[in-house]
Amino acid sequence: MSKKAKTAITPTREENFPDWYQEVIKAADMAENSPVRGCMIIKPYGYALWENMQSVFDGMIKALGVQNAYFPLLIPLSFISREAEHVEGFAKECAVVTHHRLEAGKDGGLVPAAPLEEPLVIRPTSETIIGDAMSRWVQSYRDLPMKLNQWCNVMRWEMRPRMFLRTSEFLWQEGHNAFETEEGAREDTHKMLDAYADFAENYLALPVIKGEKTDDERFPGADMTLTIEAMMQDGKALQAGTSHYLGQNFSKSCGIKFQGREGGEEFAYTTSWGISTRLVGAMIMAHGDDDGMIMPPKVAPHHVVIIPILKDDQDSAAVLDYAEKLAARLKEQGIRAHLDASDERTPNKMWGAIKKGVPLRVEIGGREVEEGTLTHVRRDIGRDSKASCSVDEFVNGAQGILDQIQADMFARAQKSLESRIHDVSNVGDVESFYKDGGVGFVKGSADILSDAAFEKVAKEHSLTARCLPFEDKGNKVIIGKSY
Amino acid sequence: MSKKAKTAITPTREENFPDWYQEVIKAADMAENSPVRGCMIIKPYGYALWENMQSVFDGMIKALGVQNAYFPLLIPLSFISREAEHVEGFAKECAVVTHHRLEAGKDGGLVPAAPLEEPLVIRPTSETIIGDAMSRWVQSYRDLPMKLNQWCNVMRWEMRPRMFLRTSEFLWQEGHNAFETEEGAREDTHKMLDAYADFAENYLALPVIKGEKTDDERFPGADMTLTIEAMMQDGKALQAGTSHYLGQNFSKSCGIKFQGREGGEEFAYTTSWGISTRLVGAMIMAHGDDDGMIMPPKVAPHHVVIIPILKDDQDSAAVLDYAEKLAARLKEQGIRAHLDASDERTPNKMWGAIKKGVPLRVEIGGREVEEGTLTHVRRDIGRDSKASCSVDEFVNGAQGILDQIQADMFARAQKSLESRIHDVSNVGDVESFYKDGGVGFVKGSADILSDAAFEKVAKEHSLTARCLPFEDKGNKVIIGKSY
Repeated sequence: MSKKAKTAITPTREENFPDWYQEVIKAADMAENSPVRGCMIIKPYGYALWENMQSVFDGMIKALGVQNAYFPLLIPLSFISREAEHVEGFAKECAVVTHHRLEAGKDGGLVPAAPLEEPLVIRPTSETIIGDAMSRWVQSYRDLPMKLNQWCNVMRWEMRPRMFLRTSEFLWQEGHNAFETEEGAREDTHKMLDAYADFAENYLALPVIKGEKTDDERFPGADMTLTIEAMMQDGKALQAGTSHYLGQNFSKSCGIKFQGREGGEEFAYTTSWGISTRLVGAMIMAHGDDDGMIMPPKVAPHHVVIIPILKDDQDSAAVLDYAEKLAARLKEQGIRAHLDASDERTPNKMWGAIKKGVPLRVEIGGREVEEGTLTHVRRDIGRDSKASCSVDEFVNGAQGILDQIQADMFARAQKSLESRIHDVSNVGDVESFYKDGGVGFVKGSADILSDAAFEKVAKEHSLTARCLPFEDKGNKVIIGKSY
Repeated sequence: MSKKAKTAITPTREENFPDWYQEVIKAADMAENSPVRGCMIIKPYGYALWENMQSVFDGMIKALGVQNAYFPLLIPLSFISREAEHVEGFAKECAVVTHHRLEAGKDGGLVPAAPLEEPLVIRPTSETIIGDAMSRWVQSYRDLPMKLNQWCNVMRWEMRPRMFLRTSEFLWQEGHNAFETEEGAREDTHKMLDAYADFAENYLALPVIKGEKTDDERFPGADMTLTIEAMMQDGKALQAGTSHYLGQNFSKSCGIKFQGREGGEEFAYTTSWGISTRLVGAMIMAHGDDDGMIMPPKVAPHHVVIIPILKDDQDSAAVLDYAEKLAARLKEQGIRAHLDASDERTPNKMWGAIKKGVPLRVEIGGREVEEGTLTHVRRDIGRDSKASCSVDEFVNGAQGILDQIQADMFARAQKSLESRIHDVSNVGDVESFYKDGGVGFVKGSADILSDAAFEKVAKEHSLTARCLPFEDKGNKVIIGKSY
């Protein structure tokens, strides 16, 4: 393989992973910081990715019997205070609405006016307001299970924001299910986690470890939090989705009770589960390289970018016509083809497509038109995958190449994850692994967490227990640095 | 036609239209008021309607080259103040965020803490924050036109809320386009209005009058506001969508400038355009009857409801199996079939489907199973349309019946609209029409608006100029009561 003199992204991942991350977002034109501290603007290319993610996952949850609905953005203070642990967990990050009007102040500028009787917080999550609705909607065991979801914006004030990973406002889906029995609710908590793992692995090409959070890391108000943990290329963990078993905590504080099969009044068992725009950050850090983003085909805004190479006026029309026909044929096959007919210079178009991570790039020049062929390159492999073939062959084979890219991306990430989980026997092993510059997770007996020495080591190396993996039946723990 | 002893909705439209409206929403289980004053909860059935509306319109605007994106919920005071008319128009309805934390107060309850340096308002609309982004994104005439849209929640504090029609928080799409020339922007303002009219008429079965708003009714900060005006069954107008030509007002206040073709710096011409969940209210008031909602098939959550009539245990399984197979065959045809297999009593299922306005109802009992037939009824016509046919015939014909329902609903609404626009020659005519209890709109010379006597008449009868219809080239005005 020839060595590249220069990469499209500066710094490289090795030089400075956090800065590389920000630069990839910029180079791929996915998002930018807004003038409102902590809030981001999701630009069209980043939003198109989110729309595809939404569309896939929305289909998955509807197939599981979940119904979408919409609940108010603003939550009364008295609601959020109902569940003690819950309010404790969120109070420090709540944006508070105190007035419902602006008026001219003394210096002529605008000032808040018309104070609210009770302040309202912008939802950091909606357990309490949805729980309140469920207390009206659930009357009998016949109304259960009730499975509700909303796609919406939430706000958790963030002092150290990072685009997609930690923003004061973010987009997500929050599911809220209610059940007749503890068993039903616990089973569902696992079922929704399985849906997240399926989504992450089979659509985002993001291998994950499924497990339970330790007591310290549980959702405020939950009895059990399940998580999928992914590993970024710098070896840090990213919590990619969580599913919470809430027991009767919220049903009791919100009054979700129903007439049971025996006629008596019972409290429901509830769950909640969410994934967010954070997953976009996870994909960038798991798949991107020193030339920019690499989009997993199943959710990529464009599957194929077609770049016409226009050299003089004479063959431009023919090349464009050829490219347009190709785009149309690909679209007929359900392939998201994007013809870059802008008047950018060809190298800029090529580098643009590379930085944006379009899975397949097609180049068409005068020679290709004459021969009835095209040249194609895989984004994940680069120039070594460059090949020519006839248009027919490409149209028939493109989906196969995209599927192969998807599979290869997952396999690479999976290999990377597996090779960077290191077995440890005790706290001393944990300490020496990270002290020696070890990259990745360590895995050892769950007893490590109760060793008196662990807290100090964890603090020194910014480690947290990521989860107790299901595959080890709760006997082991995965520890790592994290986002 | 036999006379119904009782209607499903009390009061009827004639008895009390506003109360009938609220009762239909409740009976169709579409939404309810939330504990947060002025905010509503959109329940699954109402939200499914909104999702279908979104899906159709989103496809329309993408075909017009619009890209979706997402901008911050919160807008700095300094931004919203940039355009003088704009802030004047919205200041009285702005929810203001003043703190970003809660802490325990003296009495142990939570109080707002950590005041913001600059208060933030929850977006009532996003011209200023999107204009700010465009000022960075638009550099050259090559970047234009730029067409952006977001689907989001907005907030305009409402003192007299009514579900869907006027709620403090509502869902909408807001489009924001920028152009090189005035001509391009003006043309696009019309193009987006045409898209709204197409959507309203051909999908929501809602006939509209296209026209321009008078100066008094323009969007704060716009040079021209175009509108589609619909008529509700009580003869009142409902503004169903607006498209604004903003001239250079926002490009100057937000700094959207670009290098023009001649090399000089120029300000862009911008537009904005929006439709909201208000349209759900419009459909209820245009199509509903005294038995509840009637859904236009093209956006109906369910096209067909299948009601199995179960009489004894023996044939239940056979009936259910037959119904399931029918549902599966209909779904294969792209028809949204809903099998009501709940254990509600049959009459409750039937009335439930009627109140929800499912366009087609199918009933299947033991006899139908034996004969290989089914019974079907159109919601918009009722028992007079009751008919039996073979399953095959129905599966093949269902889409045709749905199309006929869609066409009939539009034709009925169109006839109702046309028959209730009354020509007037002067202010005296306007006054006597409404004084005599006239229902509907009046239409006359636009000069009526400048008649000194008009203001008093308008005030007395709560009239506003709805628009200057395009079909009269701005020479005439439509006047009416409105929502």
